[in-house]
Amino acid sequence: MQHTDNMDTFTYLGALDIGGTKLAATVADASGPLARVAAPTARSGSERAVGEQAIELLEQACAVAHIDPGRIGKVGVSSCGPFIKDESGIVLVTPNLCGGLVGGSDLPNDWTRIPLEAVLRERFADVVIRNDCVAALIGERSFGALQGEDDCVYVTWSTGIGFGLCVNGHVLLGKHGNAGHAGHMLLDPSSDAQCGCGNFGDVEALTSGRNIGRGSGQNAATIFTAARQGEGAERALVQQAAQWFGRALYNLAATLDTRAFAIGGSVWLHHGDWLKPLAQKEIESRLPAVTSGVTIKTAALGSFVADIGALCLVLPPEWRHAWHQSRPWQALAS
Amino acid sequence: MQHTDNMDTFTYLGALDIGGTKLAATVADASGPLARVAAPTARSGSERAVGEQAIELLEQACAVAHIDPGRIGKVGVSSCGPFIKDESGIVLVTPNLCGGLVGGSDLPNDWTRIPLEAVLRERFADVVIRNDCVAALIGERSFGALQGEDDCVYVTWSTGIGFGLCVNGHVLLGKHGNAGHAGHMLLDPSSDAQCGCGNFGDVEALTSGRNIGRGSGQNAATIFTAARQGEGAERALVQQAAQWFGRALYNLAATLDTRAFAIGGSVWLHHGDWLKPLAQKEIESRLPAVTSGVTIKTAALGSFVADIGALCLVLPPEWRHAWHQSRPWQALAS
Repeated sequence: MQHTDNMDTFTYLGALDIGGTKLAATVADASGPLARVAAPTARSGSERAVGEQAIELLEQACAVAHIDPGRIGKVGVSSCGPFIKDESGIVLVTPNLCGGLVGGSDLPNDWTRIPLEAVLRERFADVVIRNDCVAALIGERSFGALQGEDDCVYVTWSTGIGFGLCVNGHVLLGKHGNAGHAGHMLLDPSSDAQCGCGNFGDVEALTSGRNIGRGSGQNAATIFTAARQGEGAERALVQQAAQWFGRALYNLAATLDTRAFAIGGSVWLHHGDWLKPLAQKEIESRLPAVTSGVTIKTAALGSFVADIGALCLVLPPEWRHAWHQSRPWQALAS
Repeated sequence: MQHTDNMDTFTYLGALDIGGTKLAATVADASGPLARVAAPTARSGSERAVGEQAIELLEQACAVAHIDPGRIGKVGVSSCGPFIKDESGIVLVTPNLCGGLVGGSDLPNDWTRIPLEAVLRERFADVVIRNDCVAALIGERSFGALQGEDDCVYVTWSTGIGFGLCVNGHVLLGKHGNAGHAGHMLLDPSSDAQCGCGNFGDVEALTSGRNIGRGSGQNAATIFTAARQGEGAERALVQQAAQWFGRALYNLAATLDTRAFAIGGSVWLHHGDWLKPLAQKEIESRLPAVTSGVTIKTAALGSFVADIGALCLVLPPEWRHAWHQSRPWQALAS
């Protein structure tokens, strides 16, 4: 009863997971998530469409949970990037949503920017937006594989490659909130593997699910499965990708003096068990003062990481202990 | 008079600049540096030799300034790395000082570690030790080219390559204080250019004064000067190095969402004017959401950066304003 004001303010939280293909909205209270609604991310209409869709989905989640959307105190947002910060707040300049950013895009819009924070703030006073890997990092530090780690990195190895970085307990954001775009770090600039961003030989071009085996006519899942079963050509492709991936982790360890990596994303979650020694070797073979004791873990929150990450951006400290005990997000699986 | 206690405690500061070839000790008071004494870094004796030499040089600096070493309140230390932190504090595990770390070293000692913090703390209660590029970063943020920059990087381009990193106003240290060892970041692992650390194709192997033109029989100064004068072969070598250097800066900008780089070190201080456009091009041509508006500046503190950096680690806030006005370190030039 002593926290009445606080409890009123924070009765409900909203969480948004904004991806290139899917947008999910979750509402939660102190007991955990109450409802989650998802839909394909808006791709047409005005630049405001994604923000307006996010609000609409949050309202639908509230309707499912029979609560008043006006009682949502804070909204945490995990979003694909990159971002630009201007006077309106965080704006998405995401090539796979904004058709006007790159020539020859097949997106049904000519957006050059998505004024996400401005649209959300018309409805919600308290909005915290972070890059999806930054939100995942915060989720893993709160409830997953990076608890108690002050010098740690979250990595997703999926269709793309992204990072969330933490050094000495500080989560890195950077000037526009884009810290962690090390998927676009150059590793082999003389390579002919090209990334969607235009770079040759960056981490994503050399390792991501979208790029691996490009031109071979096979998708990443087929290639990884064949490689696991020992097929020669596929195995060589994947071993090479794991080697480049390990070198990217080494580069981050040398740059940030990292202690622990937690890796998620569909590629790692399905194949991390046999990719891990290949990656680990690339770290351990270099600069012992920095790399000795560096650990690679598998991210613990799996498919919940985006929703939990978004919720963790606004989670009241007094809810934290109970969530630790009950791990209430598991209800979202149903 | 109201700060009597404070003033007593902080009457004098000590600063140490510990490099692979030279060790410098400075004492300062509120008016600025009072004396500086330097000597070749100790290379023989016990593992304690470097720490004991540092104390001795600080005492000599006090003698020159006619002050009692017992009145040194705090000591700031800018040191070459890498470091290991153990229960005794920061320990140097520096290949160019410790003869026992790498086989075939020609150093006249078999040290595997230098217990720097432990030895200094026997004499001084308050010691702050940082990697030399981290100290330089703090110096440039306090009095140099990075004032007011929260997302910035200090770089030295000299015989080696080192970085000091700052994101959202937090100076990055990492688990053992080694953040910024991005000179050992891989950029072209298939290259046959080898770094002293053993890596092939890391930033230092591809660009540093020690490595550039290796095997050509010329030293870096000769090569850079010939290149500047338009000599074909040397010019190609140096242009390539500047390109790799620019790619390293790009990698950091993509990783940390940096706004400003300040570059020092002998190579840049002599040749930065014509190397800068070559490096800048490698940044600007990539990932516009992250790289647009990124600036490359020349570090402002020049040859004072290590001493000022070390002093800034322990500088009382109430001295800062006066030092801004008087820039008292310039007296060290005499």
